[in-house]
Amino acid sequence: MHIPFKRSFNRKNNEMRPIEIIPDYYSYGDGSCLVKYGNTHVICAATIDEKVPLFLKHTHTGWITAEYGMLPCASHERIEREASKGKQSGRTLEIQRLIGRSLRSVVDLNIVGERQIKIDCDVIQADGGTRTASITGGYIALCLACKKLLKRSLIPANPIRNHAVAVSCGIVNGEAMCDLDYLEDSNAEVDANFIMADNKIIEIQACGEKHPFDETAFKTLFEYAKNARNLLIEKQDEALASV
Amino acid sequence: MHIPFKRSFNRKNNEMRPIEIIPDYYSYGDGSCLVKYGNTHVICAATIDEKVPLFLKHTHTGWITAEYGMLPCASHERIEREASKGKQSGRTLEIQRLIGRSLRSVVDLNIVGERQIKIDCDVIQADGGTRTASITGGYIALCLACKKLLKRSLIPANPIRNHAVAVSCGIVNGEAMCDLDYLEDSNAEVDANFIMADNKIIEIQACGEKHPFDETAFKTLFEYAKNARNLLIEKQDEALASV
Amino acid sequence: MHIPFKRSFNRKNNEMRPIEIIPDYYSYGDGSCLVKYGNTHVICAATIDEKVPLFLKHTHTGWITAEYGMLPCASHERIEREASKGKQSGRTLEIQRLIGRSLRSVVDLNIVGERQIKIDCDVIQADGGTRTASITGGYIALCLACKKLLKRSLIPANPIRNHAVAVSCGIVNGEAMCDLDYLEDSNAEVDANFIMADNKIIEIQACGEKHPFDETAFKTLFEYAKNARNLLIEKQDEALASV
Amino acid sequence: MHIPFKRSFNRKNNEMRPIEIIPDYYSYGDGSCLVKYGNTHVICAATIDEKVPLFLKHTHTGWITAEYGMLPCASHERIEREASKGKQSGRTLEIQRLIGRSLRSVVDLNIVGERQIKIDCDVIQADGGTRTASITGGYIALCLACKKLLKRSLIPANPIRNHAVAVSCGIVNGEAMCDLDYLEDSNAEVDANFIMADNKIIEIQACGEKHPFDETAFKTLFEYAKNARNLLIEKQDEALASV
Amino acid sequence: MHIPFKRSFNRKNNEMRPIEIIPDYYSYGDGSCLVKYGNTHVICAATIDEKVPLFLKHTHTGWITAEYGMLPCASHERIEREASKGKQSGRTLEIQRLIGRSLRSVVDLNIVGERQIKIDCDVIQADGGTRTASITGGYIALCLACKKLLKRSLIPANPIRNHAVAVSCGIVNGEAMCDLDYLEDSNAEVDANFIMADNKIIEIQACGEKHPFDETAFKTLFEYAKNARNLLIEKQDEALASV
Amino acid sequence: MHIPFKRSFNRKNNEMRPIEIIPDYYSYGDGSCLVKYGNTHVICAATIDEKVPLFLKHTHTGWITAEYGMLPCASHERIEREASKGKQSGRTLEIQRLIGRSLRSVVDLNIVGERQIKIDCDVIQADGGTRTASITGGYIALCLACKKLLKRSLIPANPIRNHAVAVSCGIVNGEAMCDLDYLEDSNAEVDANFIMADNKIIEIQACGEKHPFDETAFKTLFEYAKNARNLLIEKQDEALASV
Repeated sequence: MHIPFKRSFNRKNNEMRPIEIIPDYYSYGDGSCLVKYGNTHVICAATIDEKVPLFLKHTHTGWITAEYGMLPCASHERIEREASKGKQSGRTLEIQRLIGRSLRSVVDLNIVGERQIKIDCDVIQADGGTRTASITGGYIALCLACKKLLKRSLIPANPIRNHAVAVSCGIVNGEAMCDLDYLEDSNAEVDANFIMADNKIIEIQACGEKHPFDETAFKTLFEYAKNARNLLIEKQDEALASV
Repeated sequence: MHIPFKRSFNRKNNEMRPIEIIPDYYSYGDGSCLVKYGNTHVICAATIDEKVPLFLKHTHTGWITAEYGMLPCASHERIEREASKGKQSGRTLEIQRLIGRSLRSVVDLNIVGERQIKIDCDVIQADGGTRTASITGGYIALCLACKKLLKRSLIPANPIRNHAVAVSCGIVNGEAMCDLDYLEDSNAEVDANFIMADNKIIEIQACGEKHPFDETAFKTLFEYAKNARNLLIEKQDEALASV
Repeated sequence: MHIPFKRSFNRKNNEMRPIEIIPDYYSYGDGSCLVKYGNTHVICAATIDEKVPLFLKHTHTGWITAEYGMLPCASHERIEREASKGKQSGRTLEIQRLIGRSLRSVVDLNIVGERQIKIDCDVIQADGGTRTASITGGYIALCLACKKLLKRSLIPANPIRNHAVAVSCGIVNGEAMCDLDYLEDSNAEVDANFIMADNKIIEIQACGEKHPFDETAFKTLFEYAKNARNLLIEKQDEALASV
Repeated sequence: MHIPFKRSFNRKNNEMRPIEIIPDYYSYGDGSCLVKYGNTHVICAATIDEKVPLFLKHTHTGWITAEYGMLPCASHERIEREASKGKQSGRTLEIQRLIGRSLRSVVDLNIVGERQIKIDCDVIQADGGTRTASITGGYIALCLACKKLLKRSLIPANPIRNHAVAVSCGIVNGEAMCDLDYLEDSNAEVDANFIMADNKIIEIQACGEKHPFDETAFKTLFEYAKNARNLLIEKQDEALASV
Repeated sequence: MHIPFKRSFNRKNNEMRPIEIIPDYYSYGDGSCLVKYGNTHVICAATIDEKVPLFLKHTHTGWITAEYGMLPCASHERIEREASKGKQSGRTLEIQRLIGRSLRSVVDLNIVGERQIKIDCDVIQADGGTRTASITGGYIALCLACKKLLKRSLIPANPIRNHAVAVSCGIVNGEAMCDLDYLEDSNAEVDANFIMADNKIIEIQACGEKHPFDETAFKTLFEYAKNARNLLIEKQDEALASV
Repeated sequence: MHIPFKRSFNRKNNEMRPIEIIPDYYSYGDGSCLVKYGNTHVICAATIDEKVPLFLKHTHTGWITAEYGMLPCASHERIEREASKGKQSGRTLEIQRLIGRSLRSVVDLNIVGERQIKIDCDVIQADGGTRTASITGGYIALCLACKKLLKRSLIPANPIRNHAVAVSCGIVNGEAMCDLDYLEDSNAEVDANFIMADNKIIEIQACGEKHPFDETAFKTLFEYAKNARNLLIEKQDEALASV
């Protein structure tokens, strides 16, 4: 007899956890929010830096970059502090490269001009999906920073061309599920992150954690992700409208 | 004409900012709190580790250690992430050594037994006094961890012998002040951290930031600190009683 | 007028570069090959290590891990030596995590037993697709190492359950293409790595380098990848049969 | 029956060890001395650097900074070489920050002008009180460097406004003592470093090593420190007069 | 009875292994070769860098520098990757300093002008003598880079004044031998590297690995090295003539 | 007209600087000395460590290793502290490998037994020849440590089989000279370090700093070194006899 897996927040398989975005989490800084995917809480904060990396000097082009971190006690098991180990893990570097790449792809960097916007995503509490929450929240911090630049007439127009949202889907105990929490993620046979921009794809990372998987599974996860996208964009618009 | 310095929260010179301690900030882990000294917010979390450092092996004695960090965007100006720089600053190392030393001094390490309690203090928002808030909050996390050990009969008695609280006082524009915020701290001529245990001293660090200072100034600051101590101990007791 | 992009080796859009796999590249060691995807040349070498990482101690389970490197002069522009910079780049860590994860997914780690097989992938010459060539070649090194273990009766059966091959596809100048070389890769609007296992998927990483992309593009690239997979598996089988 | 602790050099509790300062220890360099507090020997050497740290560029203001090190065999037990460990310990960073801060507080940095004076304090032999000897000796190296600048008319006046001396006092076996040697320091219940400037305080660091301590103890140690200050200033003046 | 040691490639004691130099190993870059001393294979590649190190700014003088690396699986036992350890070993630093110094000594750096030529020596397969092969091959890469500079009229004349070749000789089982392979090298009582320039000496490093050795032994090894020098210069000239 | 180079201490070309060896420089530790070659002063100190490196476990064999450092202000120009740079330079690593190798070659490591003797060589003042003085002084520290082991009956016999002394010779302004000081060393055309053991050679490192040099020059330098050896051995014996 098959005992169905009980999802947190009493969710159906294609449902996300409660999503909450609190914009302007910091009174200072250039744009920030606290984003929650259920019990996963991430502070995202943008800093405008008038200095660009060397490779952009004299190109009149801007850059978006991201940094990602997790408090040592944010997770179920304490994770050693990267600052005291003296280096960031491969996982951290991979995630912050993903966040930066995703946000850059929805921005017109020529409009941003020769400056850099740095997005810090710091996980206060981790319950699965920290990288996807970081992208969804990083987008808000980025929008607020661009709004500030626009208000000060430092840029001629809004450089944001698309929303950027993300969700992790997966196959757990043989069932496709949307927005995995920590327990589901630890048991997932397939783990797929979808970063989406309105009706387009920014990035797909789908991985059979233990075994290869078939194309049908992938297609179901993709459908779930497209549903989640709509909700996330709605939440982002509400948050931005409230500022 | 002397224009008096306007203190945040409309405080008198010998008054602290509003103090708030929210115990059990994390549902998991071995003891935690969120401590607020006005706009300075620190998450303190304890982790019990059954492994001790090498120098304690076979001594039947425990150890308390602390780690300190600050979110890059916690401060008025973004601070470079220590994890990405690949090392902790001298300031960070100094603060975490202070926190560990202070908490160890109020604990009977023989009762703790051959295990280690690690206290993580992570500054979410910084407005002056992050190290003193970390000690006051770290004490709560430590108490909750000891309570847990006691409840599981892993230790024979409560090893905590004294409260441990801390406050920073200083001379700003020639006036002695209690519990400096960021603005006051940046302008302080004398900066003194008092770590106190009920009616005793755990540690005093008093420093003339720009010039040497005289003994009278030191004595006034010490009096302010003793007042603050009483309030802080009260807040700690309230927080622990509420759990 | 549209001037069609001239592909290296006079290829059609859905064609791979000439693939060559030279097994047993080293006379010593536990299994190796030189793999060529056109002008991209990678030496893959397996080392059997009877010590496992800590987390596998007493689990009777094995582990596959990979390391990736590139000679400083392998590329069109000299790349600074990671050993002299004192750390591996995020890109390197990301690639070696991908190789390890991909190879683990086609192996029964219980059969491998409590030992580790380390796969070194060193790029001698780089012309695009170094990570995909590393997976295809790493698979050969892994098979040869397992063959050696089997021959010495150190494992009870062949632990390899599937082939593991990889190819990078992308959209360049608006056209879908298979197995991108350096020039194509630098100009790709969409870049997608497909790691495949016979008729299943090991991992998909698809990314709009500059802009989001639509689902149709993704589907075409996926079809190209499935074609390439068949050829690569054939080449792997030939190489292994020749030993 | 109470057996009184026998102090090195047959000292009374409020007495310092024999103090010796040999100025111009190096024939080259910008100012140096060998300072001895009993068997604690430190070489202090100043280097004038016409480059200032970034944050002082175009401020017409100078800077004093210090570095501290200990020969691996200087201590009773060999200490691992920080250069071969690849990083300075928290203790080292704390001490060199203290030395730099203390010396800066007695100097008019505007008179120093846009240049940096670096004070190296290297412990040749350690028998307790290395940080306090470093401050007392560092002051001499600093004075000699300023004298050189003045002689070459690179600065308009002597920028030194006060002496800077330091002594460590403590409670050992229940008795207050001045200028602790290694054995006393290892057994101290309270350890207090006093950095003094003529009749003022530069910095106080008082710490209950194992337990909190009471205010009376602190006051006694402070009195001892003020006595020691007078002797140290005398020794500094003699040394400078002899050059 | 004395059983004579059987040398690889059936060599007499004063004979080198088969030497092969394949110039222009890379189609791109500024000059490269693959050099083989028997089973020791090294790729040497030159990169012309128009930026010089700080100490050469405005001196109108050039610089030659070298970097050395070994693939982890190049050797009989896998060697941990220096990039993942985060630092180069003392041996690596010593070798690359030797290569750079040796090549600089045969070049007129004034003719090179204010630019730097970097020589990468990467060992693909190691069977003893990797540093000596690197020098002999590095010379070829350097010559090709200078030829390129000359062809583009960036330098007024050929700056190369002498050949630079190297060979390792040693005493193995009491017998003097030329061009030691790995097995011989591991058993050598004396190991001597001779770096030679036509009829002169560039550098000699002779070392009694386990015991001091006498002058006669040294003289024999020196004679062997002079013989080897002639062959190596011949091979270099052939390789350069073939381009 | 040829103006002869005036050597420090009014020396002839084949003469060494005044040599002084003060044994038992530290009252604690396992053996130490202060060695002076003119103005070059090095503290050498031995530490006996009952733990051996991993590769010697269960071999009943000992090991001698060395570490080398220089005070930042020891030299004419301040040298950045390696501990604060976070790594030892290639030069430092090369020197400490040389010292360790040289001392090991005169010791019977089987007699030393499964323990390690670490020799710290710290340059207090540098005026050329620091590595050669380190070897000559390191030998004394090593002898004293062995004497201590013998006295405590921890080893069955004296394991030292030969003296170990070192001197640097060179060609300066066309003239062969013995024991170069800093000024001579900076201007040397040929620089040769000779490490000698009674009437044998431990190691020779001869290098044409700017140009290749001929065999005759090498022979003269070798003769000078053999003379110096006799004096150094005499000084070592005197120092050891005085303890």
